[in-house]
Amino acid sequence: MDLHDLVKKLAIKNESKIVLCVADGLGGLPLAPGGKTELESAKTPNLDTLAKNGVLGLSTPVLPGITPGSGPGHLGLFGYDPLQFQIGRGVLEALGIDFDLGPNDVAIRGNFCTLNEAGIITDRRAGRIASEIGAKLCAKLDQIKIPGVEVFVRPVKEYRLVVVFRGEGLGGNVEDTDPQKTGVAPLDPVARDAASQKTAEIAKAFLAQAREVLKNDAPANFFTMRGIDKRPSIPTFEELYGLRAAAIAVYPMYRGLARLVSMNVLDAGQTLDDQCARLEAVWNDYDFFFLHYKYTDSTGEDGNFPAKVERIEQLDAAMPKITKLGPTVLIVTGDHSTPSKMKSHSWHPVPVLLAADTCRTDAATEFSESTCLQGGLGQFEAKYLMSLAMAHAGRFEKYGA
Amino acid sequence: MDLHDLVKKLAIKNESKIVLCVADGLGGLPLAPGGKTELESAKTPNLDTLAKNGVLGLSTPVLPGITPGSGPGHLGLFGYDPLQFQIGRGVLEALGIDFDLGPNDVAIRGNFCTLNEAGIITDRRAGRIASEIGAKLCAKLDQIKIPGVEVFVRPVKEYRLVVVFRGEGLGGNVEDTDPQKTGVAPLDPVARDAASQKTAEIAKAFLAQAREVLKNDAPANFFTMRGIDKRPSIPTFEELYGLRAAAIAVYPMYRGLARLVSMNVLDAGQTLDDQCARLEAVWNDYDFFFLHYKYTDSTGEDGNFPAKVERIEQLDAAMPKITKLGPTVLIVTGDHSTPSKMKSHSWHPVPVLLAADTCRTDAATEFSESTCLQGGLGQFEAKYLMSLAMAHAGRFEKYGA
Repeated sequence: MDLHDLVKKLAIKNESKIVLCVADGLGGLPLAPGGKTELESAKTPNLDTLAKNGVLGLSTPVLPGITPGSGPGHLGLFGYDPLQFQIGRGVLEALGIDFDLGPNDVAIRGNFCTLNEAGIITDRRAGRIASEIGAKLCAKLDQIKIPGVEVFVRPVKEYRLVVVFRGEGLGGNVEDTDPQKTGVAPLDPVARDAASQKTAEIAKAFLAQAREVLKNDAPANFFTMRGIDKRPSIPTFEELYGLRAAAIAVYPMYRGLARLVSMNVLDAGQTLDDQCARLEAVWNDYDFFFLHYKYTDSTGEDGNFPAKVERIEQLDAAMPKITKLGPTVLIVTGDHSTPSKMKSHSWHPVPVLLAADTCRTDAATEFSESTCLQGGLGQFEAKYLMSLAMAHAGRFEKYGA
Repeated sequence: MDLHDLVKKLAIKNESKIVLCVADGLGGLPLAPGGKTELESAKTPNLDTLAKNGVLGLSTPVLPGITPGSGPGHLGLFGYDPLQFQIGRGVLEALGIDFDLGPNDVAIRGNFCTLNEAGIITDRRAGRIASEIGAKLCAKLDQIKIPGVEVFVRPVKEYRLVVVFRGEGLGGNVEDTDPQKTGVAPLDPVARDAASQKTAEIAKAFLAQAREVLKNDAPANFFTMRGIDKRPSIPTFEELYGLRAAAIAVYPMYRGLARLVSMNVLDAGQTLDDQCARLEAVWNDYDFFFLHYKYTDSTGEDGNFPAKVERIEQLDAAMPKITKLGPTVLIVTGDHSTPSKMKSHSWHPVPVLLAADTCRTDAATEFSESTCLQGGLGQFEAKYLMSLAMAHAGRFEKYGA
């Protein structure tokens, strides 16, 4: 029996409330050996109190040494094996602009590019056109009609766009048309399997029309396709856990990831205060709340150690707004580490704090990488975190008699 | 997606250098409860400095409680699942005498034995004949010709030999002819599958000639066959990691294990000094260096606690010769534990030290089993160590977007 079958079999319902607060890219590194990480440098009295009364651990997002993108990072936190369910680049791009991707949709990431008169790519990013120009061109492309399918073209940013074909019988296994270099023509979309033949033909027909539509729009007089894929066939969060789940996330990507597992994506406002207010407002309507906080990751990506420390302190300050609601289980963790020293996601294990009445408390008196290393949950793969949440919420039956 | 597919998909190339220094059988046990292990007793100032600036952990060679031989121990360190890839006894014996085993070779471990006039085994080890006698008898057997295959017969030590059949269409799934007891006749080689039928027939024909050749050589007037097998079909180290790998090992077995995954096996000289000199000489020619140090194992096998301590101190003294080269990632570990208290390999987790700029340092100020137990890498299966090395070397792309 695999993990997903097991949790589905054991899940029961009760009145408990689970809050999963994800501080994106929470884990960090000391700037010099033996120094403190961002989390260790931050003053976090509220998180420290939770750590004292709860239990800590370190989670491995995928496997040791593997740095996850946001997709696998969140799938793991939601209890899905991130090696079993993979999210294509086009799908992630569509999720990232809040596009409501259905099961019959093929999503494609597009890049506007420049062709010369011979049809050869001279610039793979069309001179990095302004977002407004990209949006105008997308509006033109969105008018293209292809018999038998619906077509959606949406701008992302600058030269980037998303194309979605919606229709029956569209496989998602088609090669990129981006040749990954200049000096050659764009490739034709080629199906990798029989089920994707129709998708390839539709993509070809669409590209032929697009070339005509864009012919006078140099430097953005064409576009290439990448990461053509459907969303993975994935059990819903409610099917697995029987939880009515609410996602309270500001950024589209995380709203999209929550939508991928069929959580209810709520209006989250713009700030952490807005998110906490929404949490309180809908407290009685859901069993599970996914609260996403972006800025621990973005400051890490910027390589700004003090800013990441400050963002952690802001998160700490919001904790009383969550704890006052009396969640049965409160988890604070990240989807991966984003050490400001590295300016990128990393593979390092992620601090986990779990507070619940049934915790076997450990010796920790504060929330940090080093206390998590000694914490009662040990080091574990992120995909098991939801099982721990369910257990502490009294929502799992005994396995076997 | 399995581990091997994953690392293959994520591996990228850069200018980094990885050194994997394997102190064979490194892990130990205290002689009395609460006492110090060999590693804890040794004065290791250089390793302690590395431990302070790096990160420690404990690796489980196969699974908890499983004592590995050298084969699975090293496969795990090289990042191969030792339960997925198994090395037959004959193959290991051939590797152990530096025999360059090809993909069409079937390797067999042989034991000279004594038959009485009725063809019954009276001594399964032929009175433990001297190695020189074994070598002379092997030279005679090596003259035997079997149509359609090449035959190689090589001495190992005393009554032990290796036989290799090289040819097309030879399966490796044939029963032992050693009945594992005296008072009975040797068994016939019997194929366990259709693909090994030809191998069994060739073995039978070879044994018939061998009986004739050896008939006047009592006590070694015949030999039995064990561990008949081909080398496993295994992705090469370069296929998995894109690393140009050099093996600098003195002992044939470890050279053979490196050859099994297609590392470049270099002339390593006879001493650790020779090995370090070779490492420096070829530093610019490879990305990855497997340095094998045998004596921590052999002193453990001898049950000689102080000698093992001394050998660890000798290894420590060589560390500056490695660190001065500036490896991006330096790992010091073992393939298994060999506690002198047990005089044998054991299942106990193995100390791991990883030094790199991107380490999340832990509280350790020395390299020992007890500091490794509290180390930042936690306890993990050895097969993940290469993924950690690749990550710290910046040689893995992000998984998913």
